[in-house]
Amino acid sequence: MSPAGCALCTLVEKLKDMEVYPSPMFQGRDVWKIYELPTAIAILRPDQYYPGNTLVVAKTHATELYHLPLSESTQYYQDILRMARALALAFTPRKMNYALLGNTEAHLHWHLVPRYDWDPNPQRPIAEYPHAPTVLTPQEYAETIAAIRRALT
Amino acid sequence: MSPAGCALCTLVEKLKDMEVYPSPMFQGRDVWKIYELPTAIAILRPDQYYPGNTLVVAKTHATELYHLPLSESTQYYQDILRMARALALAFTPRKMNYALLGNTEAHLHWHLVPRYDWDPNPQRPIAEYPHAPTVLTPQEYAETIAAIRRALT
Repeated sequence: MSPAGCALCTLVEKLKDMEVYPSPMFQGRDVWKIYELPTAIAILRPDQYYPGNTLVVAKTHATELYHLPLSESTQYYQDILRMARALALAFTPRKMNYALLGNTEAHLHWHLVPRYDWDPNPQRPIAEYPHAPTVLTPQEYAETIAAIRRALT
Repeated sequence: MSPAGCALCTLVEKLKDMEVYPSPMFQGRDVWKIYELPTAIAILRPDQYYPGNTLVVAKTHATELYHLPLSESTQYYQDILRMARALALAFTPRKMNYALLGNTEAHLHWHLVPRYDWDPNPQRPIAEYPHAPTVLTPQEYAETIAAIRRALT
C-alpha cells in the first residue's frame, strides 16, 4: 500500500495525525491539511498564487484511476467534487480547473485550481505561464483553510 | 440545453448523427467521433501529436462538474474512466493525463492525453511545451479510432 520512497504515501501517512507537515516534495515547505475525505486527504498547495489551489491525494497508493476498484475510484471522484464545490463557495472563481497528471509523482493526486478574472491569462492552462510562488504566513494559511472548511459544512 | 453560440453544443449535436464534422473550434478541421457514451461524446483531437489524445464532451450543456446532478456527474466520470482504460489498452502510454479546464470553452469537456516515454518532457504538463500539430490522413484517423473502439469492447 505504501511503496518505499513514495513521497505522497509519506505525506498521507503524516497528515492523518498532524495538521502540518514539512514535505520534501515541496522543498521542505509546510504543507497544511485541509480535510480528510473518505478516500483522500485534501491539502493546501504551499503556493497560493491561485487562492484555494488544492491537492487531493488518494489514500491508496495507485498510479492510474482505473487501477482502483470502480467503487473506490467513484468515491474518489465524489470526494474531489465535494472539495471543488467548497472551493467555489469559499473563493468564487470564474472557473474551476481539474487535473490529474502524475507525470513526476505517479501516486494519484488531483489538482484543483480555482481560476480568476484577474489571472494574467485566464483563458489558458496555468502551466503555460510560470509565476513566482505566493507563500503565505501561517495565520494566512490557517484562515484560508478555515474558509474552505466552513464551505464544506 | 444548447445555448446559442456554444461550439461544443453544436459539435455534440452534429456528431450524434455523423462520424466526422469540420468544427470551427478546430479551425474547420475534421473532428472524428470515437464513440457515443451515456453522458458524452468522445472525439479524437485533430492534433494527434500524442497518439490517442481525446476529448470527452458532455452531452448536457453545463460549465462546472458540480452543476450536474450527482448521478449524471458520476456517470460522466465513469464514462471518461472507460475511455481512459481503452486508450491505455490501445496505446500503452507511460501515464494517462486527465484535465477538465474550460477556460476558453466552458461547456464541460475532459482532455485525456496519453503520455509516452518519447515525450520531449514526459514529466511535465503538456501546456509547458507547445508543439506543431500532428495532422493525420483520413485513413490514419480511421485506424486510430478503430484501435480505440476495439479496446472499448
